[in-house]
Amino acid sequence: MSMDFGYDVVTAEEYDRQRSLYGPLTESLRRLIAAGLHTEVDEDTVREARAAIDAVTGMLERKQRPATAVLHEATGRPLVWANPAVGLRNAIAPPMEIQHEDSGRCWSEFTLGAAYEGPPGWVHGGICALVLDHILGEAASDGLTQPKFTGTITLRYLRGTPLGPLRAEAYIERTEGAKTYARGYLSDAEGTTVEAEGVFIVPAWARDAG
Amino acid sequence: MSMDFGYDVVTAEEYDRQRSLYGPLTESLRRLIAAGLHTEVDEDTVREARAAIDAVTGMLERKQRPATAVLHEATGRPLVWANPAVGLRNAIAPPMEIQHEDSGRCWSEFTLGAAYEGPPGWVHGGICALVLDHILGEAASDGLTQPKFTGTITLRYLRGTPLGPLRAEAYIERTEGAKTYARGYLSDAEGTTVEAEGVFIVPAWARDAG
Repeated sequence: MSMDFGYDVVTAEEYDRQRSLYGPLTESLRRLIAAGLHTEVDEDTVREARAAIDAVTGMLERKQRPATAVLHEATGRPLVWANPAVGLRNAIAPPMEIQHEDSGRCWSEFTLGAAYEGPPGWVHGGICALVLDHILGEAASDGLTQPKFTGTITLRYLRGTPLGPLRAEAYIERTEGAKTYARGYLSDAEGTTVEAEGVFIVPAWARDAG
Repeated sequence: MSMDFGYDVVTAEEYDRQRSLYGPLTESLRRLIAAGLHTEVDEDTVREARAAIDAVTGMLERKQRPATAVLHEATGRPLVWANPAVGLRNAIAPPMEIQHEDSGRCWSEFTLGAAYEGPPGWVHGGICALVLDHILGEAASDGLTQPKFTGTITLRYLRGTPLGPLRAEAYIERTEGAKTYARGYLSDAEGTTVEAEGVFIVPAWARDAG
């Protein structure tokens, strides 16, 4: 599979170097997104802010890496640094950091702040769906090492999910041919807020290649 | 309902002023997020970029508006400018701009770029879930004018959703007491990519108040 996709491989050392270089840049960007949500600064300040932001965009565009996928040499897992759920380098992502148990179970603890708010004080229902779709997919694909796409997913919202520290968890229930059935949930300190079940499917091209 | 939530009301004129002031600021921020995904600039440039970003954050934090909800005077709809799906002022949002037909049907045409990518070239399945949850909720709640929360939602992924221009659409199928059943889909130029059905529920406090 790695050959088909033209993966680059990154050593643990280079991974750590890039992580410590670009991780804090993205963290700064997340704080800027949060500051922009409710700012009421005047027109001159907005103009000055825009000019500064556009200048930074120009700086970062000076050198861009090709969008080929990168595999971590030691774990064999793709880095997916630009992913909107787990991407260390995508300011849209909380980011979730996924923990993989030997049993195949996955979990992640992360915090959702004001940028993920739907109804006042609560996480947007669609953001709950995003994090659950992602972690069920991680469980179903053994940490994204197998090509599997969401077939169907059902989410049951038991109650509102408050903004703040949360936990997501997922595991494989069973596998039938090309279909993997996964389950999981999102929870706060009081217990489960959203339950999820999904079917993840190996695409035809990967079945043929297998 | 507006009184219970402590809504502020904004005139059409003030709405337009804020929109033209803060909209382009958020657009600049979205371009910066995209530039950060795959930048390969060196350590000195990253340090310079971070310092500039942190300085802008400080500028925007100088004056923040209270997080009370704001109603548009003419339409009676909440602005939800900080919403992660439709928020004009949330750089995480594409943003979707929702069109409301007299029939109650909602639709939106928007573009999803590299920041929303899951598998190479395709929209992340969880982002499809985010935009569909949001537009089904808009249909079920008459443009967010009624308090309704997602009860359950099921998404069927018919095929991959390519990055690029997309359309989402939703409508109410039926209403039974406190439950509203909505359906919708996401599509590209070739047709439907993801189907969704959901149940949206009036919370107990709003039923009691009704």
